[in-house]
Amino acid sequence: MTTGSPRRVAVIGAGAVGCYYGARLAQAGHEVHFLMRSDYEAVREHGLEVRSKDGDFHLDKPLVHRTPEEIGPVDWVVCALKATAVQDARDLIARCLGEDTRILLLMNGLGLENTFAEWFGAERIFGGLAFTCINRLAPGVVHHIDYGAVTIAHFQDDPAALQDARSLWDGATVTLHTAPSLLAARWNKLLWNIPYNGLAVTAGGITTDRVMSDPGLRDAAEATMREVIAAANADLAAHGQAGRLDGDEAIPAMLRATEEMAAYRPSTMIDFVEGRPLEVEAIFGEPLRRAQALGVPVPYITLLTALMRTLDPARASAG
Amino acid sequence: MTTGSPRRVAVIGAGAVGCYYGARLAQAGHEVHFLMRSDYEAVREHGLEVRSKDGDFHLDKPLVHRTPEEIGPVDWVVCALKATAVQDARDLIARCLGEDTRILLLMNGLGLENTFAEWFGAERIFGGLAFTCINRLAPGVVHHIDYGAVTIAHFQDDPAALQDARSLWDGATVTLHTAPSLLAARWNKLLWNIPYNGLAVTAGGITTDRVMSDPGLRDAAEATMREVIAAANADLAAHGQAGRLDGDEAIPAMLRATEEMAAYRPSTMIDFVEGRPLEVEAIFGEPLRRAQALGVPVPYITLLTALMRTLDPARASAG
Repeated sequence: MTTGSPRRVAVIGAGAVGCYYGARLAQAGHEVHFLMRSDYEAVREHGLEVRSKDGDFHLDKPLVHRTPEEIGPVDWVVCALKATAVQDARDLIARCLGEDTRILLLMNGLGLENTFAEWFGAERIFGGLAFTCINRLAPGVVHHIDYGAVTIAHFQDDPAALQDARSLWDGATVTLHTAPSLLAARWNKLLWNIPYNGLAVTAGGITTDRVMSDPGLRDAAEATMREVIAAANADLAAHGQAGRLDGDEAIPAMLRATEEMAAYRPSTMIDFVEGRPLEVEAIFGEPLRRAQALGVPVPYITLLTALMRTLDPARASAG
Repeated sequence: MTTGSPRRVAVIGAGAVGCYYGARLAQAGHEVHFLMRSDYEAVREHGLEVRSKDGDFHLDKPLVHRTPEEIGPVDWVVCALKATAVQDARDLIARCLGEDTRILLLMNGLGLENTFAEWFGAERIFGGLAFTCINRLAPGVVHHIDYGAVTIAHFQDDPAALQDARSLWDGATVTLHTAPSLLAARWNKLLWNIPYNGLAVTAGGITTDRVMSDPGLRDAAEATMREVIAAANADLAAHGQAGRLDGDEAIPAMLRATEEMAAYRPSTMIDFVEGRPLEVEAIFGEPLRRAQALGVPVPYITLLTALMRTLDPARASAG
């Protein structure tokens, strides 16, 4: 398959993030199939509307489906399910799998690719990290508010596979980065998600500007980042990777970038205030388990994780 | 004044705790004056009803007042205001003060006695630590559910003053302990209040049994206790006190006692779910400031304090 040629793409988990990036791929000429549940009728009737800081557009006749069987084998699966729905992913994706299908996990958290690699084979698994702010305004209407870059990495850190994967995004209005190490990229994203998703929820469901303007919460964010760096570097070493995260550079940059954001609602905070399951294990539980296994002291992450598990509506309703 | 003789007592802050212990003192024969606001009419009309695991009783004609001027000088002021109302205490108490009036602070938190000592003189200030579970069921009706012992200590740790203070409680149905060090007694109480009041609130407003049955929260409680012990012993040393808290003994005992409690609602958790101001600075802020000033690392207390400050309804409505 040559660069720039249209591919068959299945978007599994067509929430705000899946819809937005799927629509960008469709806009670039790919044959994008959206698996939809609640929004199926609305999108079939009215299409998919994207309001974006990078330009509004509308897909008049997106290819929407109620079942993965209707989609069948594709070149690329873009899985944008919540990490809390990862157990649904296996059956859904299996039905879209061909010999050479590759799978991009546009999902939050650590360790998800390992699960998918076990299910479908390591060589076809890619991680995607979306640094973006996208909300769903109504059925079939998504609002891309800010940022939007995606970093992709290959599960086995294969440079050739990564370059080939990159070509899917040629022509799409998406800033795409490639990362030589998926593990480092995942930890680098957690450097933001653990403190901000955690503090925004445990402080009662607040926006990032309130975290940054409160000296105590800002210090807590920074202290949590230092723990993430320590855990990340121990985990990278344990996996035999040469690279390390540089906290002295990354932490001030992350704090500054967050200060410059508007009043941002981290995804887990939105889930929390809307009473949906929280992505606790992917964003908090797995990083904590690795830190503990490696003997890295992470009191902030430990306490945040314990609180998030209790605050998780999925658990509250189960218990 | 000889042991057992009736004293004039003013109860300032007649919430559940003030009403209960004031009623016990009245029951023992003292002339107890209650300063009341919202419950004044109900108590004047129907008296004060105490339902207690140590025996129900009823004060038919308690001495209730709307202003401290009506009470005038007394032998003892029992101040059971919330720590959040400490600024109200000065004027209220001043009007009940005679030459030899002593003041017992039946309040939560660290450092309150210092403030009162500055206002009224160190020699007359006593701290009272109520290990108890008392709720207000209705105006003029309090329910003493469990525990109930009070530990008193003198602000200057004067043994003679303490023995004399003890006599107020002779004949009252209250288990009374005396502590040779007020500072150690306050920290020992914080050993429970910081983890349990903090976790019960930050985990969403839960009871202590849920903290203890969740492995993550239980570990967090224990880790927080270790920090309290470290901060307490540094603070005791900084104040030139010889005594130390023994974490190896106190922590397992505190965990066990909490496991044996029923589903208990810490006072701050009740305030939180009812939208009242939280006693953040007395229970969290001042211990944290002391730990930080003494260079004791206390990440759990730091994070809990930052979260409590943000979750405090008093601050949310102010901000």
